[in-house]
Amino acid sequence: MTGPRYTPLAQSLPATVPFVGPETQERARGHAFAARLGANENIFGPSPKAIEAMAAAAADIWKYGDAQSHDLRHALAAHHGVAPEHILVGEGIDGLLGYLVRLLVGPGDAVVTSLGAYPTFNYHVAGFGGVIHTVPYKDDREDYEALFAKAAEVDARIVYLANPDNPMGSWHRGAEIAAALDHLPEGCLLLLDEAYVECAPEGTAAPVSADDRRVIRMRTFSKAYAMAGARAGYAIGHPELISAFNKVRNHFGMNRAAQAGALAALQDQDWLAEVLAKIAEARGRIAKIAEDNGLRALPSATNFVAIDCGRDGAFAKAVLETLVDQGIFVRMPFAAPQNRCIRVSCGPAAELDAFAAALPRALAAAQAG
Amino acid sequence: MTGPRYTPLAQSLPATVPFVGPETQERARGHAFAARLGANENIFGPSPKAIEAMAAAAADIWKYGDAQSHDLRHALAAHHGVAPEHILVGEGIDGLLGYLVRLLVGPGDAVVTSLGAYPTFNYHVAGFGGVIHTVPYKDDREDYEALFAKAAEVDARIVYLANPDNPMGSWHRGAEIAAALDHLPEGCLLLLDEAYVECAPEGTAAPVSADDRRVIRMRTFSKAYAMAGARAGYAIGHPELISAFNKVRNHFGMNRAAQAGALAALQDQDWLAEVLAKIAEARGRIAKIAEDNGLRALPSATNFVAIDCGRDGAFAKAVLETLVDQGIFVRMPFAAPQNRCIRVSCGPAAELDAFAAALPRALAAAQAG
Repeated sequence: MTGPRYTPLAQSLPATVPFVGPETQERARGHAFAARLGANENIFGPSPKAIEAMAAAAADIWKYGDAQSHDLRHALAAHHGVAPEHILVGEGIDGLLGYLVRLLVGPGDAVVTSLGAYPTFNYHVAGFGGVIHTVPYKDDREDYEALFAKAAEVDARIVYLANPDNPMGSWHRGAEIAAALDHLPEGCLLLLDEAYVECAPEGTAAPVSADDRRVIRMRTFSKAYAMAGARAGYAIGHPELISAFNKVRNHFGMNRAAQAGALAALQDQDWLAEVLAKIAEARGRIAKIAEDNGLRALPSATNFVAIDCGRDGAFAKAVLETLVDQGIFVRMPFAAPQNRCIRVSCGPAAELDAFAAALPRALAAAQAG
Repeated sequence: MTGPRYTPLAQSLPATVPFVGPETQERARGHAFAARLGANENIFGPSPKAIEAMAAAAADIWKYGDAQSHDLRHALAAHHGVAPEHILVGEGIDGLLGYLVRLLVGPGDAVVTSLGAYPTFNYHVAGFGGVIHTVPYKDDREDYEALFAKAAEVDARIVYLANPDNPMGSWHRGAEIAAALDHLPEGCLLLLDEAYVECAPEGTAAPVSADDRRVIRMRTFSKAYAMAGARAGYAIGHPELISAFNKVRNHFGMNRAAQAGALAALQDQDWLAEVLAKIAEARGRIAKIAEDNGLRALPSATNFVAIDCGRDGAFAKAVLETLVDQGIFVRMPFAAPQNRCIRVSCGPAAELDAFAAALPRALAAAQAG
């Protein structure tokens, strides 16, 4: 009765969670958040056509989803001007990251990312025994030159680059990243996480051929399309790599209503344009709120804004905690010096009003503490 | 430009799919199936309250799902009379199987299952480098005594037992399985897949304590609750094992509407009882159709019926193919001698009428071929 035997790798892993969810925090606090601005969810909401498609699909939920996500995959291929063989639909970028790491990273294999970048990617790498090497941000931007140089130095299997970046909201011109690919070492895949790219200025998406074996791009319906809870993301890449996911993926893992909703959302580009305008406006509003409090908002190409609280991580953490105490759910970067900031998701006026009302008290409390 | 480097394990794996989905077959055929009776989906459909909950959740889909599936998990715990720490909610049993195998099975580790049992489990085992050892069915039932003996012989990490069984629909009394646990070797986990147990006679669910370290049970909303496309399953087991899933699971992987729908479905036990009565009736109807054609239906404790076509696998395959040609989606067991059967899911009268109309022609074609 000693119980099951875990693999050596499983034994070595902590039981952890990359992020504490807002519901978990709400249960701990004993009441709901007044403003849910911490998970870069898109409060402006999905296309009404997507909502309608998901509601209609609910009655059909007795059917498994299409294992090939055929209709969505073909629509995405047309949208991006590539062949369906370049596209893989999966259970959000988180799910796709897990599959990709599993395909490429075994115990001891090196992987490179930025210090303080997406923790869920690091979670997957650790989960398959990979070794994370980090490069610091440079001027609050992920430093692709340093990342590629580090990849060469440690013989990395994957280099992770989010453009635009999370948690800082910064970005590079896509053409610069494409030009830098010559410095990516042989046998190292650039994992280009473009989760927020719809929110970014024209020219941010890297002009990389879908046939380029050196790069895989990840996109999602969670952010600009406002469907985080649906779990629908996709990868664009070389057909050989795309096909390799069939070795490990959960073929019937897609929620059927999510497939229908994502397709409808993709087909409603007018709604997307409206939401992007609202996001841009909200970024301006958040910057104004920061300025009104003597703080500086960083430029953002995403649906969130990092606000520089002007001191160290302990100070920003005190600000954040007082915001949370007041019912404002926000998060902050993990690593110095980016952790001098708090990160606030875009949202409608009511949520930003609540944030604006709470911020002075949070700053005062942090300054007093 | 040689492309990414795969792990040795990934290189060794085929790009495969455990099942070809009905939509894939429909695209190949050029038109839709008249009766979708092949994937053990539950055509009687989910509770209207579950449909309503999913439709209502569609508007809220901009939020990530609760990483802890707190409400559903607590409701399941109450339903089963266990503590929430005994329950893990995940992305269908398929998703949970992947996590469990990953925790326990490394390259070369032995796993035991029945020859011809659930292929997706075997897919996960192969995907993590495990070695499958099989035991034949005995009188068309999974043979737990032989499975446990084989597990001892090969020093297995996991022994897989579906009760009721898929694809045959057979079952054991739960008390017999519980009694046999004394013969389960030390350090081997019994993975008891109870996906169909709600459809089975009273006493089929094994009376195993949720604190028993030797067993993990898997349940799902895909079958009796008719929510296959939602991707909601759960595991019941010792808190230590349940907690270990947090080392590898995709914490934010649950679709938010699926969480709400599963909770509503669980709370509508009246609907479940009605559906179970319809399933029992449909089993009788399928048996009658078989009998009318000179065939024998096997007893079933599931939402499907295996029909013995009376000859070998090639004959049953010919029957199946002619059924598919006539727009009747059915499947059949993979391994001899169970592959003398075809497997027909329960469904409403219209679908079974279509099957009844097509079967004589399929048998004639198989006999002529």
